[in-house]
Amino acid sequence: MSDLIAALRGAIGATQVLTSADDMAAYLTDWRGRYQGDALCVVRPGTTEEVAQVVHLCNEAKVAMVPQGGNTGLCGGATPCGGEVLISLARLNRVRAVDTDNNTITVEAGCTLHAVQEAAHAAGRLFPLSIASEGSATIGGCLSTNAGGVQVLRYGNARELSLGIEAVLPDGRVWNGLRGLRKDNTGYDLKHLFIGAEGTLGLITAAVLKLFPLPRRRATAWVAVASPAAAVSLLTQLRSDCGDAVTAFELISATALELVMRHIPGSRQPLAAPAAWQVLLELSEFAANNPDVELENSLAKATGVQDAILAQNESQRLALWRLRENISEAQKIEGFSIKHDIAVPVSRIAEFVAAADAAIEKHFPGVRVVCFGHVGDGNLHYNLSMLLGVENAGLIARSHEANLVVHDIVHSLGGSISAEHGLGQLKRDEIKRYKSETEMELMQSIKHVLDSHGLMNPGKML
Amino acid sequence: MSDLIAALRGAIGATQVLTSADDMAAYLTDWRGRYQGDALCVVRPGTTEEVAQVVHLCNEAKVAMVPQGGNTGLCGGATPCGGEVLISLARLNRVRAVDTDNNTITVEAGCTLHAVQEAAHAAGRLFPLSIASEGSATIGGCLSTNAGGVQVLRYGNARELSLGIEAVLPDGRVWNGLRGLRKDNTGYDLKHLFIGAEGTLGLITAAVLKLFPLPRRRATAWVAVASPAAAVSLLTQLRSDCGDAVTAFELISATALELVMRHIPGSRQPLAAPAAWQVLLELSEFAANNPDVELENSLAKATGVQDAILAQNESQRLALWRLRENISEAQKIEGFSIKHDIAVPVSRIAEFVAAADAAIEKHFPGVRVVCFGHVGDGNLHYNLSMLLGVENAGLIARSHEANLVVHDIVHSLGGSISAEHGLGQLKRDEIKRYKSETEMELMQSIKHVLDSHGLMNPGKML
Repeated sequence: MSDLIAALRGAIGATQVLTSADDMAAYLTDWRGRYQGDALCVVRPGTTEEVAQVVHLCNEAKVAMVPQGGNTGLCGGATPCGGEVLISLARLNRVRAVDTDNNTITVEAGCTLHAVQEAAHAAGRLFPLSIASEGSATIGGCLSTNAGGVQVLRYGNARELSLGIEAVLPDGRVWNGLRGLRKDNTGYDLKHLFIGAEGTLGLITAAVLKLFPLPRRRATAWVAVASPAAAVSLLTQLRSDCGDAVTAFELISATALELVMRHIPGSRQPLAAPAAWQVLLELSEFAANNPDVELENSLAKATGVQDAILAQNESQRLALWRLRENISEAQKIEGFSIKHDIAVPVSRIAEFVAAADAAIEKHFPGVRVVCFGHVGDGNLHYNLSMLLGVENAGLIARSHEANLVVHDIVHSLGGSISAEHGLGQLKRDEIKRYKSETEMELMQSIKHVLDSHGLMNPGKML
Repeated sequence: MSDLIAALRGAIGATQVLTSADDMAAYLTDWRGRYQGDALCVVRPGTTEEVAQVVHLCNEAKVAMVPQGGNTGLCGGATPCGGEVLISLARLNRVRAVDTDNNTITVEAGCTLHAVQEAAHAAGRLFPLSIASEGSATIGGCLSTNAGGVQVLRYGNARELSLGIEAVLPDGRVWNGLRGLRKDNTGYDLKHLFIGAEGTLGLITAAVLKLFPLPRRRATAWVAVASPAAAVSLLTQLRSDCGDAVTAFELISATALELVMRHIPGSRQPLAAPAAWQVLLELSEFAANNPDVELENSLAKATGVQDAILAQNESQRLALWRLRENISEAQKIEGFSIKHDIAVPVSRIAEFVAAADAAIEKHFPGVRVVCFGHVGDGNLHYNLSMLLGVENAGLIARSHEANLVVHDIVHSLGGSISAEHGLGQLKRDEIKRYKSETEMELMQSIKHVLDSHGLMNPGKML
């Protein structure tokens, strides 16, 4: 192993190969502190060529590798299991090109999502991917986990925002698929293998991403509705009236809002009376259209709306969004919870909430359900906790059982047990319960043919 | 072989196994008459289970298979090479479900694209994929070739319009990936392997497709511009003013328009004076917005516009679209031509046209370039013919040379030699000149692991 470390130092410089426990510590634990691993060393290559050299050396030595971006994942996908070479992509952080006529940006994997958004904005364009951790999350991580977030209903997830990628294969070869083309039908679309593969097939080192026109005006509303069904029906009407101007549609339960009120200083109830469910929605429009008027007209027609308020200025708009964005933080302050990141067809959201609520109440009486999420994508964060610490400890100990209760319902509705967070270590075993044998075998075959020695991010996903 | 035919008859019924030359004729030639093959038999299964049985039997007998949808392909991808079992998916033509809240439609592979559009429309939704052959082309063929067409700049191609698929694998197993989810990060996204694979990895038997709100109003304009560069600059301005309301942006050269005038009865020049280049563009909007006003305002500001006319009603709109849609037909009447279906980054369209025109004029003096296409996707159809029949025969004989001239320029600009038609038999060999060895090897590995006996559509793509 000391040979490998020496070779890595020779390849990318001694200062970029970390071996002391202190230097490595930040890389070996995930940010929620749930996963902890050990690594042979942490390497920080600065170019694609250096990544290729690192991978080549590891492959020669048959030592496994763990790619890591901003280390903001929620499923332990970037935490080593023990003895791997951890490859941090953080130094590959150049914006290689912005092409405004082609509406593309070419970036390296280590660029933070925020940096990509900023570079797009500076060029008068929108890069619409937006997630809570965007200040630290890298674009390589976003692609490897196919990140989602709050604008997927209009713009798609990370996968749909990519036109091409550059990847280092498990044997150290570089595949240059950095094409900035809207149409290219010349064989298998290999980028889709690497996107969402959580680093198990190779390392994404750069990407060509789609840019969009920058909306000129937004209308943002906070709407009280009686039920998830009323929220879905409002979404359907709003889209019929305003089309794809609808760029965000978030559902927030009373319990989720309460937690924010309790723990996040400066939070204020937007409406006079708290409702069982609230929707935070946004329209984005261009110069000629007034989205406030559009939105008011559509809301006036809607049957299930109990009350609604439109943001009158940017600071009101940001205050509404902070209520939504602080739910996870408030929940963390409140204490441990069991998290589920599920998706069902949008038409089955109400059915899911009713069935899951009933099943959870039956199996875990007294549990608090904190439910919120991206209804426009059929994606809910359906989290569980008990009020009293000791009861909550008992619940957490029964996490696996709770997961089965929720995920069996998701599965019966044609849903997904990981909508946007991936599998990582967290759901690696559980997924076998829900995927067909045929699908698992296909995945294993692909893994085997691309990474026959099992060196890429072992213990994750598969 | 007679054993296999008997077994196929047993599995799906004797009347659905065609063996006579007369019965098979229509399946064995492509619609342009460029490819002609022979098959052991033509089978017409009516359900996914029957498809699975057919594939199982062929796999047992190690007899190759060719899937075929509407047989409208342009590259010989659905024509047998000799001795295969041709599997027509035409009888799998049920719309299985329409879900308006989820904005999805679930259809079988043999549904024509037109039937899918109609079913969506009947539910008050838009299925935006639109190509000239939509009356005959099936959705299975569209997915297998990742079809594009005239609305890709706004809605994406067939790949981006799919949420899930059902496929029969080369050994006859059925993979049910019919998920109607906007977010699902639970492993490799296998559907993207089968989409665009031209039937070389298995047969797509059904799909869940995305639907969109139905635009209420359209504005359609015919605009004269001086050059491709002026067209691209108009596109960029229009998007900045009107955002994603821009749903079509087609470039048409004077030569392409002349052919339509000459050969298509009832065609009329939309503008007083013919221009070197014309753009047919369309905005799609919802109730609150008036796209005519939007479009007029944006065109009034544009610098490169020489003249423009807006369709005043639906019949004028359709007349403008007919000019665009009849270009291929007019060209067919005019005589043989060498066709190129290329894509480059939108920002390099002007550079491509200038370089290709110059190179073609140098190598093939006197050639007529018929250039038109989907500028918003960087996709041009760049076709070549000579005025006199005898000269044209000489040009056609030098097709390979002409392809190299055009495609080498495309490649140097980071482009694709098959934007939307696929590789099939036509470009199977030529693609090796442009893809890296690494990419070809990756493709071969994928093919080998999924279809180790090489039974799925041999001689196509790879």
